[in-house]
Amino acid sequence: MAKIAFIGLGVMGYPMAGHLKAKGGHDVTVYNRTAAKAESWVKQHGGRSAATPADAARDADFVFTCVGNDDDLRSVTIGPDGVLAGMKAGAVLIDNTTASAEVARELYEAAKARGCDFIDAPVSGGQAGAENGVLTVMCGGDEAVFERTRPVIDAYARMVGLMGPAGAGQLTKMVNQICIAGLVQGLAEGIHFGKKAGLDIEKVIEVISKGAAGSWQMENRYKTMNQGKYDFGFAVDWMRKDLDIVLSEARRNGAALPVTALVDQFYGEVQKLGGKRWDTSSLLARLEK
Amino acid sequence: MAKIAFIGLGVMGYPMAGHLKAKGGHDVTVYNRTAAKAESWVKQHGGRSAATPADAARDADFVFTCVGNDDDLRSVTIGPDGVLAGMKAGAVLIDNTTASAEVARELYEAAKARGCDFIDAPVSGGQAGAENGVLTVMCGGDEAVFERTRPVIDAYARMVGLMGPAGAGQLTKMVNQICIAGLVQGLAEGIHFGKKAGLDIEKVIEVISKGAAGSWQMENRYKTMNQGKYDFGFAVDWMRKDLDIVLSEARRNGAALPVTALVDQFYGEVQKLGGKRWDTSSLLARLEK
Repeated sequence: MAKIAFIGLGVMGYPMAGHLKAKGGHDVTVYNRTAAKAESWVKQHGGRSAATPADAARDADFVFTCVGNDDDLRSVTIGPDGVLAGMKAGAVLIDNTTASAEVARELYEAAKARGCDFIDAPVSGGQAGAENGVLTVMCGGDEAVFERTRPVIDAYARMVGLMGPAGAGQLTKMVNQICIAGLVQGLAEGIHFGKKAGLDIEKVIEVISKGAAGSWQMENRYKTMNQGKYDFGFAVDWMRKDLDIVLSEARRNGAALPVTALVDQFYGEVQKLGGKRWDTSSLLARLEK
Repeated sequence: MAKIAFIGLGVMGYPMAGHLKAKGGHDVTVYNRTAAKAESWVKQHGGRSAATPADAARDADFVFTCVGNDDDLRSVTIGPDGVLAGMKAGAVLIDNTTASAEVARELYEAAKARGCDFIDAPVSGGQAGAENGVLTVMCGGDEAVFERTRPVIDAYARMVGLMGPAGAGQLTKMVNQICIAGLVQGLAEGIHFGKKAGLDIEKVIEVISKGAAGSWQMENRYKTMNQGKYDFGFAVDWMRKDLDIVLSEARRNGAALPVTALVDQFYGEVQKLGGKRWDTSSLLARLEK
């Protein structure tokens, strides 16, 4: 059993912190910007809530953050009341936010400067994966620190990999989002065409899904796409945030991402259609508008 | 055992005709534009070769065609020496070519006018699927004719579905190719970005391939893409032919296919890079050029 602080109880963080307590059996202290959510977490799971990230992190062996973006992340880590102001030497900061590789490297250095360690550890698997504790966790950092941290992360994960030095977890998550962008747009165009052609989409997917066109997205989204149902899943707003990070990083490393950039624009159009909170599969709604 | 004619012994037709003979146990007569290939097929499998499609089709219960495009298909079916000139009443013409839905409807009518039947039956699964007799076959036509024909098709198929009336098989194949175009481009951009970011691609794919970014293409192509190996698989020239059919049909039915159209252009660039015969996964080569 370890002492853990968890900062950020959003749709992902709330259940992840729950697994660290219930499944991992750890002593968990939580902090959330909106205090009411921290209180309801404590009511549900036990443990304690703290008044600031720094307070939550005091005495913790492992400090988790899962917030919205780079700025939120800097505020709860290196900000005046951030976790690094409270962490003891030898503690590990693990960031589950999908953020830039740049901020990951920055926090790695900031942690080291205080005698602490850092692992960037963005996740995939969505809300359902968080709730069921079966996330995929893509880590960047030092191998020895990773080996020490991995058994703790296991409480909410099905697959945990060390991808390279600090930032490599974030870069891997970016590859994931790039692949999804083109894939979902292709699937949306396929279903759109099939409907226009008068085909029975269920029958079409049954026949083609085991072959070269098959994908997780096809198997898990074709039904809801065919029904025009998008009020669930990974929201367009979050995908646009991730693609912003992706396209900035690609500017730096020189990768050409023509379809990813185009699909990012398409998601902008979905937002204007009222789809900010729709699932990413709502690219089809844009084709049908 | 039925009497069968098979027209077109290309990389797909050659092994498909072989399965009809060896696995189906049918009496197979073949025709190929380049006669030497028909002779070598007969040497390998037995059966007979004919001088024209019409001659091959005479007395046959089922006549298969598997040629290059709409024009080739018209030539071997409704042309002066085409199969319809030789077919007996009640025989079924099955077309395995990936062709337009328009020519499928045209051949359906032409067959009916002669007391024959027609099924459009394009396949997916590539050369390996044809050689192993495990193709997916997407059929269009009348249900009673389909039920009569299906046991014969089974000799080279793992999955056979009736998708709707004449042309529906072709339209389903189009959905398949649309999904693949966006999917492969997304995968190519993901791998390209990952390489530029200095990631270990094998490790990245191991971690992300079971989740929301996963696909048949990712599992079956990431290794060769990472090695820049493209001298195998479904050729860019054939994919461009298929996308030409797709984009023409979309003009008619009003479907919007922005990424499919863009990826078609990208394949045009791959052709100019010398990649006419490269696998469709060579979209990555274009990003790296």
